Amino acid sequence: MYDIRGLNEECGVFGIWNHPNAAELTYMALHSLQHRGQEGAGIVCSNGDNLFGARGMGLLPEAISQVQLDSLRDYRSAIGHVRYATTGASELSNVQPFLFKHSKGDLGLAHNGNLTNARQIRQALEEEGAIFQTSSDSEVLGHLLFKAKSPSFKSNLKAALNQIKGAFAYLVLQKDSLTAALDSHGVRPLMLGQIDGAYCVASESCALMAIGAEYIRDVEPGEVLTFNDDGMDEDFYALETKHRMCSMEYVYFARPDSEFRHHSIYNVRKALGEQLAKEMNVEADIVIGVPDSSLQAAKGFSSYSGIPNEQGLLKNRYVGRTFITPDQKMRERAVRMKHAPIRDVVEGKRVIVIDDSIVRGTTSKYIVKALRSAGAREVHMGISSPPLKHPCYYGIDVSTHAELIAAYQTVEEIRQEIEVDSLTYLSVEGMHDVYRRFESKGECDACFTGNYPIEIVDHLLPQEKEKKTKGV
Amino acid sequence: MYDIRGLNEECGVFGIWNHPNAAELTYMALHSLQHRGQEGAGIVCSNGDNLFGARGMGLLPEAISQVQLDSLRDYRSAIGHVRYATTGASELSNVQPFLFKHSKGDLGLAHNGNLTNARQIRQALEEEGAIFQTSSDSEVLGHLLFKAKSPSFKSNLKAALNQIKGAFAYLVLQKDSLTAALDSHGVRPLMLGQIDGAYCVASESCALMAIGAEYIRDVEPGEVLTFNDDGMDEDFYALETKHRMCSMEYVYFARPDSEFRHHSIYNVRKALGEQLAKEMNVEADIVIGVPDSSLQAAKGFSSYSGIPNEQGLLKNRYVGRTFITPDQKMRERAVRMKHAPIRDVVEGKRVIVIDDSIVRGTTSKYIVKALRSAGAREVHMGISSPPLKHPCYYGIDVSTHAELIAAYQTVEEIRQEIEVDSLTYLSVEGMHDVYRRFESKGECDACFTGNYPIEIVDHLLPQEKEKKTKGV
Amino acid sequence: MYDIRGLNEECGVFGIWNHPNAAELTYMALHSLQHRGQEGAGIVCSNGDNLFGARGMGLLPEAISQVQLDSLRDYRSAIGHVRYATTGASELSNVQPFLFKHSKGDLGLAHNGNLTNARQIRQALEEEGAIFQTSSDSEVLGHLLFKAKSPSFKSNLKAALNQIKGAFAYLVLQKDSLTAALDSHGVRPLMLGQIDGAYCVASESCALMAIGAEYIRDVEPGEVLTFNDDGMDEDFYALETKHRMCSMEYVYFARPDSEFRHHSIYNVRKALGEQLAKEMNVEADIVIGVPDSSLQAAKGFSSYSGIPNEQGLLKNRYVGRTFITPDQKMRERAVRMKHAPIRDVVEGKRVIVIDDSIVRGTTSKYIVKALRSAGAREVHMGISSPPLKHPCYYGIDVSTHAELIAAYQTVEEIRQEIEVDSLTYLSVEGMHDVYRRFESKGECDACFTGNYPIEIVDHLLPQEKEKKTKGV
Amino acid sequence: MYDIRGLNEECGVFGIWNHPNAAELTYMALHSLQHRGQEGAGIVCSNGDNLFGARGMGLLPEAISQVQLDSLRDYRSAIGHVRYATTGASELSNVQPFLFKHSKGDLGLAHNGNLTNARQIRQALEEEGAIFQTSSDSEVLGHLLFKAKSPSFKSNLKAALNQIKGAFAYLVLQKDSLTAALDSHGVRPLMLGQIDGAYCVASESCALMAIGAEYIRDVEPGEVLTFNDDGMDEDFYALETKHRMCSMEYVYFARPDSEFRHHSIYNVRKALGEQLAKEMNVEADIVIGVPDSSLQAAKGFSSYSGIPNEQGLLKNRYVGRTFITPDQKMRERAVRMKHAPIRDVVEGKRVIVIDDSIVRGTTSKYIVKALRSAGAREVHMGISSPPLKHPCYYGIDVSTHAELIAAYQTVEEIRQEIEVDSLTYLSVEGMHDVYRRFESKGECDACFTGNYPIEIVDHLLPQEKEKKTKGV
Repeated sequence: MYDIRGLNEECGVFGIWNHPNAAELTYMALHSLQHRGQEGAGIVCSNGDNLFGARGMGLLPEAISQVQLDSLRDYRSAIGHVRYATTGASELSNVQPFLFKHSKGDLGLAHNGNLTNARQIRQALEEEGAIFQTSSDSEVLGHLLFKAKSPSFKSNLKAALNQIKGAFAYLVLQKDSLTAALDSHGVRPLMLGQIDGAYCVASESCALMAIGAEYIRDVEPGEVLTFNDDGMDEDFYALETKHRMCSMEYVYFARPDSEFRHHSIYNVRKALGEQLAKEMNVEADIVIGVPDSSLQAAKGFSSYSGIPNEQGLLKNRYVGRTFITPDQKMRERAVRMKHAPIRDVVEGKRVIVIDDSIVRGTTSKYIVKALRSAGAREVHMGISSPPLKHPCYYGIDVSTHAELIAAYQTVEEIRQEIEVDSLTYLSVEGMHDVYRRFESKGECDACFTGNYPIEIVDHLLPQEKEKKTKGV
Repeated sequence: MYDIRGLNEECGVFGIWNHPNAAELTYMALHSLQHRGQEGAGIVCSNGDNLFGARGMGLLPEAISQVQLDSLRDYRSAIGHVRYATTGASELSNVQPFLFKHSKGDLGLAHNGNLTNARQIRQALEEEGAIFQTSSDSEVLGHLLFKAKSPSFKSNLKAALNQIKGAFAYLVLQKDSLTAALDSHGVRPLMLGQIDGAYCVASESCALMAIGAEYIRDVEPGEVLTFNDDGMDEDFYALETKHRMCSMEYVYFARPDSEFRHHSIYNVRKALGEQLAKEMNVEADIVIGVPDSSLQAAKGFSSYSGIPNEQGLLKNRYVGRTFITPDQKMRERAVRMKHAPIRDVVEGKRVIVIDDSIVRGTTSKYIVKALRSAGAREVHMGISSPPLKHPCYYGIDVSTHAELIAAYQTVEEIRQEIEVDSLTYLSVEGMHDVYRRFESKGECDACFTGNYPIEIVDHLLPQEKEKKTKGV
Repeated sequence: MYDIRGLNEECGVFGIWNHPNAAELTYMALHSLQHRGQEGAGIVCSNGDNLFGARGMGLLPEAISQVQLDSLRDYRSAIGHVRYATTGASELSNVQPFLFKHSKGDLGLAHNGNLTNARQIRQALEEEGAIFQTSSDSEVLGHLLFKAKSPSFKSNLKAALNQIKGAFAYLVLQKDSLTAALDSHGVRPLMLGQIDGAYCVASESCALMAIGAEYIRDVEPGEVLTFNDDGMDEDFYALETKHRMCSMEYVYFARPDSEFRHHSIYNVRKALGEQLAKEMNVEADIVIGVPDSSLQAAKGFSSYSGIPNEQGLLKNRYVGRTFITPDQKMRERAVRMKHAPIRDVVEGKRVIVIDDSIVRGTTSKYIVKALRSAGAREVHMGISSPPLKHPCYYGIDVSTHAELIAAYQTVEEIRQEIEVDSLTYLSVEGMHDVYRRFESKGECDACFTGNYPIEIVDHLLPQEKEKKTKGV
Repeated sequence: MYDIRGLNEECGVFGIWNHPNAAELTYMALHSLQHRGQEGAGIVCSNGDNLFGARGMGLLPEAISQVQLDSLRDYRSAIGHVRYATTGASELSNVQPFLFKHSKGDLGLAHNGNLTNARQIRQALEEEGAIFQTSSDSEVLGHLLFKAKSPSFKSNLKAALNQIKGAFAYLVLQKDSLTAALDSHGVRPLMLGQIDGAYCVASESCALMAIGAEYIRDVEPGEVLTFNDDGMDEDFYALETKHRMCSMEYVYFARPDSEFRHHSIYNVRKALGEQLAKEMNVEADIVIGVPDSSLQAAKGFSSYSGIPNEQGLLKNRYVGRTFITPDQKMRERAVRMKHAPIRDVVEGKRVIVIDDSIVRGTTSKYIVKALRSAGAREVHMGISSPPLKHPCYYGIDVSTHAELIAAYQTVEEIRQEIEVDSLTYLSVEGMHDVYRRFESKGECDACFTGNYPIEIVDHLLPQEKEKKTKGV
């Protein structure tokens, strides 16, 4: 299961070429990707001549009305996007897909990830007179494409992709083609599928399953797939590629029923829990998972350690909806209403509570407190990933050291801070071991180790994140 | 955990007397009762002279804005209500608490339950010239109170309560007192608590825990509690009382961390699962619960039967929010997007899937189909309650035989309809046995047996439920 | 022409029986009555069995949407109402027509005027248990009608009308009839018309002309007209009647193209200006009217005195829309943006400026200032009605002495206050003289003389007007 | 007075440099310019470092809320805009002032007029990779400015202004200056003023008077005024200039209290009426003006001819508000509810009705019909401007021949079409004569004569006006 919390994925994308129900399938696919972004959503469709779109703020049903969806019903190709704001202010003009109306032909653009040299490129383009419509880094690609001089769109695109750095899964819709491109490190997931003969791509395989499509394969780092009426063209824009899929996709972001390389996240998380049980040596009466994202790790922990797995914590379903807010104060308040302990289950017990990560520590602290007030005799905490020490520049909404408790405190200090009897993190090696067992060829672990695989050109200072471009 | 589905509870109530944070505590309490009603919410407060209120449609954050909540901040007594419409059109004027401005003094009214002679009383009052403001049955009590001639409010209230029949937990707020009254069969739960010396009442103990109040005891059938500046007055309006708590509160409605008579629903549901395992004789590889409400029963089933418990079904958190709709077509569509099987878990397995009830059978049918398409070799279904055969007139939103598949089909016919390899319901006796083990003194089982403990005076025909009073 | 200012009419009504375009004609008629009320509007229609309605806050296009209007298209009888709040808070529940759904049959109610014993009756009804839906005095009649015991609606209505005191033009719509009733003093105007054989009634004849109906006659004081499928029934509810039409209808409220007894208000106002010229002896170069309501009086003044009439003041059309606000501060600010002098016209001139009344004096003061700053050498003011000294209890929004400058200041003091070279009011006798010339049989002049023709039972204190009943 | 009709001005602008109440003065000034545009309004302010703005659709109070206005309170420089859409779809993104956020520095842009080579420039810019944010022609200047290479803003601006053709009064706000530029023919009016030492510019002098500023002089064709902390810099961007002020500004658009070269429009319009009386030889009993814009011409006509001037037509104030709609069907319907004849005034009379122009003829036809149905014996029509035969490409919303009845019908045919006894237009020579008397140095009369003073590069075909760029 999945969750909304301190760590936020920035986006989910979906695209489909030449299917009679393109818009509706996109809507359904976006719905199953909603966990990847709740701030806004949009769909852009092609009727073969022009592109049309609908988009809005909020969850999918708020962002796109039935009437809007109906207005897109007859188009055969579409891209869609759900958004969580990492860069760019939280306002409608930043909601994707972007739709550029241009004398060269309309162009739709959807981006999952974060560019690390967008500011540099933007500044250069502005020097030459370009005027940007949004404060989003994603718009840069549109400008590069319209500036390009070659008559071949694909060669323009490959040139543009080679100029941008960072993490990206880009979908580009034009009247005569849909293009999907993944950055040369494959930081964000992108899956290829097919339904009724039509090709589609999605951030996660759960979206393919939700619409009844077949999940064919994972798109590779540096790959560029073009879909048009001649079928699919497979190519690469990057000469050098590496596998550096985001570790947190396994640990936390992806839906448990999604699969990477045909292995379900559910089983990966159970294995992370088993690995944690191997590394953590604590006697206890029960092991409980923090719902929803850590239930599988708790199950894995229980099955390896033999300690019974119980549901000792409830999650209030209505909180997430209520308090999705970038406001720190409101987030803290939300913590209190989010989890409820079940007294009968924990009273008098030595409890191991499993969570997938600790960001600021506030939630952990509250959970420990709640369990103790419900009568738990001892509370031990196991984290199914290593300590989060470094900001992510590739699309995750934790960009400052100050927000990461493990960036400036030792494990023992954190243990004291959250007032737990013992605290154990999974080791970095243990984590990579688990991923390898599921055929992963390499992961980005920069948030744990500080080893950033892609250069950070913009050197975005934390405080600058706040200075959002405000337009009228 | 709890869920939003075919069966819907009508309401949750909360009241508190003489606490400096009355409105905010009520807001937090309502938040933890949100699972009992998502269509509207309201709060009415007393400043000692007059009553003031705020209410709106939708979930709590939509229904009551921060500004409105702030405007009620200084009042020391409050009642609150979350609503799911059973009778009365779904419109703002029907959202409770009702606030009557009257020369005799303001009066606030919140009601959980359903009256069975409201139409009869309303007609009589209209004959005498009364004009009703709403199409809700709950308003009847207000008219009876204002018609009453005795100078003693309490004697008027007892007289009025003796005139109305049905299921009710009523909260009445006046400038100088808060009164809580439970019908003579105790069909709906009502819990007494205390915080910082101030008394409070809530539909479920989870609301008491959410605000940090002490859970004192369950309010008894026929009991009338009056809170004023002299403290609490305990009394009964009914000469004869019986314990007929709604069985579905245990099975489905109440939050697992809520407690009846200091026993958590979590353990009751586990026990229902164990009892089902005793009664159901099926070989299988794994047992899975339908999230969220049947996870405990599955766990109980697993612990008795020894069959491993896995999470084979995921629930899309965003669906509930999206498709709460009284429209049958939309509900069916929602079913498809609601649950996702985890292929890795069920592929090649003989699966027992545990659910708490079958209403129309559409969800069950979809779940079975989804499990089979994910590779399950066999799918058996166990239901942790008896077949739902009879409409409820006491406040649950299933009022017609036509909506209940078990009302007109045998278990074998249902098994074929939902295409499951075997289907086992818990026996009525088995269910009562479990409740007795948790000190229950008697439950309403009318929806299973047709033995209605309270007379249905209005004989509300199903088709009449649609004819809603429409005002300008 | 007409205006929006310190003095506000409370309402306009329209009703029509048995016409295929009942709702649309009502909409158009209300549009031409918009000057009588801009705070809300509504329509209630009958389909022969039930009543249906639409209403809203604001001007007609805001209050009633095209979709709502379309939904009423097929009904053959209708009443409509535009509202300016005199009593009752400014909120949707007070917008008329009221629609009562009742087991005795639906009833629609629209009221122009103000009752003077509504509080007394309301209190008595509440003592007997009645619960009011609104804070409007108009609702009282509905309760009296539903309380009545006679099987004859008409006899019930006549009894009820004899219980209420004050100024009223009431329209009552039922499934089988439309009834129009005017109070026994005929304070508010009500006109009878006919279109395509269908009878209709309207507050002013301009509404009849707007829809292309024939203007038959003025409804008489104490008259009760019933329209049903047998035609029109003419009757009186009051034994004693007097003609006491509101003087301010002539001076200010009615549209200039409306006619009373087939004489246009345009000519009445010109005659008031001529009469003022007779009574006012001032030398000047030009005479200008304050737009829009005093342009006719200025023309009459000019034609009698021979002083040329020029347009020396412009009115900003957009102000009225912007600043209709019960907030005193905003009203003062609006004054500044409301009128602009034309320099070329007034520079170096001795100017007589004609206005129809002075309420608080703020507008007059500003106008004088503006004219002087544009270069006027002298500014004299002529008012085409007597000094406003007494509050109106019959439906005009000036209910407190404190708001009326003439209530506590002499003419000379007012002259100094508004800084004008001379100030002349029309005499009370002069005013009555003019009306008599247009066949009037008597007018209410209470606001000038304090001679109230109808008893004020409620003795509504000014400060109580602020204490609005606030419901949730 | 002014009016809203078939002919629509596109915009009004206001700018002010270095005044403590810049935003509020701009709001008040825009309010007095509201007659020049009712579709949207906006304000952009500078705090010396950055620019901030607020804008919205509709009239000023809808477009800019009190809260938004308050948020701009502390800034010392501002530009504002009211808009009627001539080119560019009617949507928020087209509402001005535009605010460009750019690494070179923020830039605000407000434009009154219409460019005639905007499409050509836009296409060229898009070829080079520019991406436009709006479908408005006004945005072109922004792109030209950001493309320019010179370090001197003024030299860039002059170069850019020399590239664009058409009618424009442009205001450009930057952090360190406010620039006002008028096209080389001076088609649109622009007035210079001063308040409390701060310079300001406005489309009409009425805006200067509304805020209490001194009206200094009219900005000259081709002039560029720069305001910064050093004061005002006066310059010209164009080598050749001509005076070709729009004739319809005198006839119809400008507010009567506005002045050109210190002569009020009120007197110009009276003179147009006198000139018409000289040219029109018809016997009649009364002369009436179509309110509001033709009342002065009627007065002038009356004073020259000696025929008494009466108010025979009323205008419903609420119509304009209701039916401002680009939809032809709705406009026709609006006509019916717009004017009401006063029976008493016209019955039995030979009536001359004066209007300022005839666009499609529908309003005229209705007015004649209404006057006849109110009893007028004869109806003659005098138009205080020549026949409108040619579309305007410089900012007036009549761009197609098909919409102009005089483009394809003779005066006699129009007379028959509108069913009037005689029809007389003012001669072109007579019109120019009048203007000369008020010191005008030349006017554009293209809409009467087809002599377009500025080249129409884009050759915008009428049907293309409908094809609006639709973005998401």
